Amino acid sequence: MITVLRIGHRISRDKRITTHVALVARAFGASKIIIDTKDKKIEDTIYSINKRFGGNFEIESGVVTKKIINNWKGTIVHLTMYGEELNKSIKKIDKSKDMLIIVGAEKVRPLIYEKADFNISIGNQPHSEVSALAIFLDKFTKGLWQKKKFNGKLEILPTDKGKRVISKDS
Amino acid sequence: MITVLRIGHRISRDKRITTHVALVARAFGASKIIIDTKDKKIEDTIYSINKRFGGNFEIESGVVTKKIINNWKGTIVHLTMYGEELNKSIKKIDKSKDMLIIVGAEKVRPLIYEKADFNISIGNQPHSEVSALAIFLDKFTKGLWQKKKFNGKLEILPTDKGKRVISKDS
Repeated sequence: MITVLRIGHRISRDKRITTHVALVARAFGASKIIIDTKDKKIEDTIYSINKRFGGNFEIESGVVTKKIINNWKGTIVHLTMYGEELNKSIKKIDKSKDMLIIVGAEKVRPLIYEKADFNISIGNQPHSEVSALAIFLDKFTKGLWQKKKFNGKLEILPTDKGKRVISKDS
Repeated sequence: MITVLRIGHRISRDKRITTHVALVARAFGASKIIIDTKDKKIEDTIYSINKRFGGNFEIESGVVTKKIINNWKGTIVHLTMYGEELNKSIKKIDKSKDMLIIVGAEKVRPLIYEKADFNISIGNQPHSEVSALAIFLDKFTKGLWQKKKFNGKLEILPTDKGKRVISKDS
């Protein structure tokens, strides 16, 4: 089971980025996202996505992150542009354990680097926590996130032109 | 040469998402981003990143996109959750041609679907244009974006704990 922990979330500045982080977590195979700052609006957005597109992805916000990190039974991965190369680190992760993936916004406290079992970088150029999480989960799941069935009311069928959407009434 | 075209950019709503799209374009091997709406602040952010972290990634904003699309000599890829599966489409793209990758914000006009040579989806669940672009460029370049040298004043060296940064004065 994969949980994403989003730290340093500020409602006004980060609302869209954190929403995108949550959507990536959901689409790329995580089971849950935890956000440090309480943000009802993001919770509602994600539940509305679940309702339409399916799955049982969980979201919890307004959480004391120190407790989550200290009590975590499993592996802690921290995604940071300062970390060890993805290709080197990913092989070392024990896939049988639950994983907590920490993604920060702007500056991250030194404590996080210490508590993480793995500090991992997705390249060493600045880009985005959204892309870092997506690339990490894509590599970690070996692309299997694409096979996940969400069984939602709405299902999008791949097509070369236009849109093909199946809408199932419940 | 890869150019990213960001359409539907609204300054107040999208400033951080579009900045992240631009940073992903830069980090994952594109040469340039074009943004439909003029946004001096994002331009400044990207030039400041270039100055510190190197490379000659270009940014242009406030552009008539219709002209860009109609005059494009090369391949046009449109990333959309409604598109054809990535794994199927990516093989068909001629790598010798210049590529324009269109990424929208919210709703995209039907014209874009028609003008694109390839409408490609990165999974068929909603996530983010930031992650879609990153995954596409990672697959398209077969991970080679990680090898690109930026030769910036600041260079980050991968490390398992803490931060290792080389700062070169020019």
